[in-house]
Amino acid sequence: MATRLGPNQYGKAETHLVRVYRDGDVHSLRDLTVSVALAGDLDEVHLSGDNTNVLPTDTQKNTVYAFAREAPIGAPEAFALRLARHFVTGPIRRARVEVCEVPWARIAVDGDPHPHAFMQASHEQRTAVAVSEAGVDWVLSGLANLVVLKSTGSEFSGFERDRYTTLAETHDRVLATAVAARWRHVRIDGDWDESYAEARRALIEAFASTHSLSLQQTLHAMGTAVLDVRPEVVEVRLSLPNKHHFVVDLSPFGLSNENEVFHADDRPYGLIEGSVEREGAPPAGPAWDPYPLL
Amino acid sequence: MATRLGPNQYGKAETHLVRVYRDGDVHSLRDLTVSVALAGDLDEVHLSGDNTNVLPTDTQKNTVYAFAREAPIGAPEAFALRLARHFVTGPIRRARVEVCEVPWARIAVDGDPHPHAFMQASHEQRTAVAVSEAGVDWVLSGLANLVVLKSTGSEFSGFERDRYTTLAETHDRVLATAVAARWRHVRIDGDWDESYAEARRALIEAFASTHSLSLQQTLHAMGTAVLDVRPEVVEVRLSLPNKHHFVVDLSPFGLSNENEVFHADDRPYGLIEGSVEREGAPPAGPAWDPYPLL
Amino acid sequence: MATRLGPNQYGKAETHLVRVYRDGDVHSLRDLTVSVALAGDLDEVHLSGDNTNVLPTDTQKNTVYAFAREAPIGAPEAFALRLARHFVTGPIRRARVEVCEVPWARIAVDGDPHPHAFMQASHEQRTAVAVSEAGVDWVLSGLANLVVLKSTGSEFSGFERDRYTTLAETHDRVLATAVAARWRHVRIDGDWDESYAEARRALIEAFASTHSLSLQQTLHAMGTAVLDVRPEVVEVRLSLPNKHHFVVDLSPFGLSNENEVFHADDRPYGLIEGSVEREGAPPAGPAWDPYPLL
Amino acid sequence: MATRLGPNQYGKAETHLVRVYRDGDVHSLRDLTVSVALAGDLDEVHLSGDNTNVLPTDTQKNTVYAFAREAPIGAPEAFALRLARHFVTGPIRRARVEVCEVPWARIAVDGDPHPHAFMQASHEQRTAVAVSEAGVDWVLSGLANLVVLKSTGSEFSGFERDRYTTLAETHDRVLATAVAARWRHVRIDGDWDESYAEARRALIEAFASTHSLSLQQTLHAMGTAVLDVRPEVVEVRLSLPNKHHFVVDLSPFGLSNENEVFHADDRPYGLIEGSVEREGAPPAGPAWDPYPLL
Repeated sequence: MATRLGPNQYGKAETHLVRVYRDGDVHSLRDLTVSVALAGDLDEVHLSGDNTNVLPTDTQKNTVYAFAREAPIGAPEAFALRLARHFVTGPIRRARVEVCEVPWARIAVDGDPHPHAFMQASHEQRTAVAVSEAGVDWVLSGLANLVVLKSTGSEFSGFERDRYTTLAETHDRVLATAVAARWRHVRIDGDWDESYAEARRALIEAFASTHSLSLQQTLHAMGTAVLDVRPEVVEVRLSLPNKHHFVVDLSPFGLSNENEVFHADDRPYGLIEGSVEREGAPPAGPAWDPYPLL
Repeated sequence: MATRLGPNQYGKAETHLVRVYRDGDVHSLRDLTVSVALAGDLDEVHLSGDNTNVLPTDTQKNTVYAFAREAPIGAPEAFALRLARHFVTGPIRRARVEVCEVPWARIAVDGDPHPHAFMQASHEQRTAVAVSEAGVDWVLSGLANLVVLKSTGSEFSGFERDRYTTLAETHDRVLATAVAARWRHVRIDGDWDESYAEARRALIEAFASTHSLSLQQTLHAMGTAVLDVRPEVVEVRLSLPNKHHFVVDLSPFGLSNENEVFHADDRPYGLIEGSVEREGAPPAGPAWDPYPLL
Repeated sequence: MATRLGPNQYGKAETHLVRVYRDGDVHSLRDLTVSVALAGDLDEVHLSGDNTNVLPTDTQKNTVYAFAREAPIGAPEAFALRLARHFVTGPIRRARVEVCEVPWARIAVDGDPHPHAFMQASHEQRTAVAVSEAGVDWVLSGLANLVVLKSTGSEFSGFERDRYTTLAETHDRVLATAVAARWRHVRIDGDWDESYAEARRALIEAFASTHSLSLQQTLHAMGTAVLDVRPEVVEVRLSLPNKHHFVVDLSPFGLSNENEVFHADDRPYGLIEGSVEREGAPPAGPAWDPYPLL
Repeated sequence: MATRLGPNQYGKAETHLVRVYRDGDVHSLRDLTVSVALAGDLDEVHLSGDNTNVLPTDTQKNTVYAFAREAPIGAPEAFALRLARHFVTGPIRRARVEVCEVPWARIAVDGDPHPHAFMQASHEQRTAVAVSEAGVDWVLSGLANLVVLKSTGSEFSGFERDRYTTLAETHDRVLATAVAARWRHVRIDGDWDESYAEARRALIEAFASTHSLSLQQTLHAMGTAVLDVRPEVVEVRLSLPNKHHFVVDLSPFGLSNENEVFHADDRPYGLIEGSVEREGAPPAGPAWDPYPLL
């Protein structure tokens, strides 16, 4: 039987790095989880177990920690990019590095920021992906766990009906989601932090401001808003679980419920996914290749 | 063989309630998960399956939703207490109601707060427990998932050593934990929100301000700080996982690492638990009885 | 303000130990997660940060690993007991050690058991707790994540109704739960593995065989069944989430649904907890003290 | 600014269906979680919120339940395929349906299988994906959460070294992973259950039997083994986290540790992913398109 090796990649996942910077008595803090995936001339390790071309995942972990010491980490995008470029050498032809950062805020004591005490500000994550291959780099920025809700200003009506449809139309519903988004940059020489802050703001404001006729429409508005404000962004992908809030029937208890009391359900949930691209955007190459593969 | 029924309780756990208040166009939002546990004259249901004394857990869920409509929810403590008192009737002699609230913040658009769009501010939880029995009420306030870290100002030395001890003493380490705390009130007629805000502030500031010789010492300082500022609180219990941050050995790479680069480990972790009580505090009764039982 | 230190304990949680035994070419495997909690003369560490009486949690972790090498692990109960007794010395007056074991089975190749390849047989956990204090030992056996379901033979009717009750009575429903159970031994010199196997079998068979009028009744039957078959067991505690399976209304599609198609819901869930004790059982002492404390 | 809608899909995720079949007094049980994703002519819903072409995700959920009643579920692959084909109609051009089944076993009482009491046999999952588009179907079978371990017969040496490499070579290590695998069928008219059972057996036996020089080599052997025994399978993809088991240094305690006592670590972990394809396999079309999109 003739077989061939198909798509493959390997690396160290979820190296959890905490970096403390000491500027005299005043410290600052970074908290990043880094996942590396490498591809290249790896046929032999699969076919015969010859590890000649395999840089150990343990080494990849060491590299993450060493890089965090050798130079300032900078923006997650910059750190991911620096690592990705480093790993592309010899038989390794492509490196994907994903960074996930959680924010910490300085604790205030008697109204003054403490020099070395911090609290985790949120479980929202800032993410970055850099892919390097053949001297070309792709960079995605992103966020996850951004949980948002509109208590009105959302409808769902005029939809397709078939024999299994029982859903009533509504012109006023709660719309809630946990935003996962990534966006692709066409340039890698800008101010990552400013770009991120503005893109994030655009996403959030578009969610809030769009009178929603469907979550797809909101998704499209959110993606378009990022493209509107950030010329260096050429493509936005969003994954929006529709976190259903069901109006509880209180009529058996003689109570009205005009969209006031909701059961927030866990499963099943709608999952609305989509993307908006700028016309004329350069090709995405391997930027969106799935990680993990399955 | 002679056996007897031992401790028992039953109820509906984790009813997830979202309540929208509409003040004209300006909405506000509450997000509470409510767990009920009832005890009383429940021998027959265990022994023979006679459900005469069993108020269905489905009814308890309905009650949570109805109560959220019939009157303002108020503070989590007040809502828990109102529910607990309601359930104690007839054969039900004791009710425990736990409320877990997650905070939402108003989204700002162009700098102005949006009237009906919100984002989840944090995954920190505000908790409340009310236990009612025989006309007496106990109330606990609390919080969970408050993740804090000090990048210096923490030592650990002078400890007991035995033949299995390899740990080096340190006079400068990272101290990080996810605070879970509950505190017991001696009065139930105060301003729950003010009390909560001040107790939380005392916990956080004590964590930040205490030069830590051990996490136990920090725990005690945190509990004492709450008792210092809130006379209505008579007991504070804390559970503090010691989230280990290990200094990475970078010497093989010719790099120093003076508490700058850390590996944040997941497991195992230290678990430091303790409590501080005010002298002369009234008995806690069933307030701290475990829930769940196992 | 006068305060006093209340209940406290500390230790290393969730040390994940895998032990390989090599009997020539044939290996066997144990997979245990161990949590230690110590209490005693620990006032000074809380009050002043004096660690003289504190055996580091790092040492506790080392001890778990070393004990696994110095002698056969034996039953989880025996390993917990050996560790608990070891830690009670000097200022440490009480030790609680919890062991959680997951089972592995030998992989079969061409029908023959492989000498050194294994698969995780289940996510059911066997648990053991040993508490030692002042020369006295308490031992609990237990299990968790035992997910069981009856597709009929379960009713719920004749229950209390109030103004918030809408639930219909039923004489045929699905009953499903994830059993968490612990049981207390009066002797510590028996065959732990045989005792465990028989107690587990009694729990499962009682769940299956009891025509259930309520989950409380099933719980009681399960606990009693253990006491019936194992004289060394004097108390059984069970925590049984009622994992609701709702009959889906298929009538809009012209379909009947006589308990055939169910929606398995996640939350909320009923939580039924209770215990059965043997008359004349010796006191439980600290055996059931909560861990963690909160 | 000119933009265009990019890749998009929507559907109901994680509908949890439990199906009871009653053959007289003897019941059988199926437990499936179904996720649907639809794509097609959905520009308008994104651009203007016109829902004309949108079949509600609520309807998709209803369909899953109704289909489970209208005809026997059959193999997960068959159920996924039946649903996928159903959804492709009018503006919906492509449907992806994923089914995840967990196995239940009959409880034995006094050695006899009980007619209607069951226990969850494992947390291993059998998965199936069907994608239908333009009258063509693709079917993937798979599994997840298959946790396996070899206590010897695994080496890692001869690897690339750079300045960040500190890992020692080893000729005897523990190799452990949680297998996630999917494999693509070239025919859809076979016996799904037999095919699944044999493919699963091939994966497990190959893991056990391969003397491993690297996890990549084991991965390749596992994929090849499936292709060897199942001619209807043309491609196998595997995602294998390297669950590190570190030998604990017991020398400070005067103990040797010849691969006997291990610390099973959680994070970071290696992630080894790859695929094996049969030469001449027909194109995969949309079969491997990522779900979720991000």
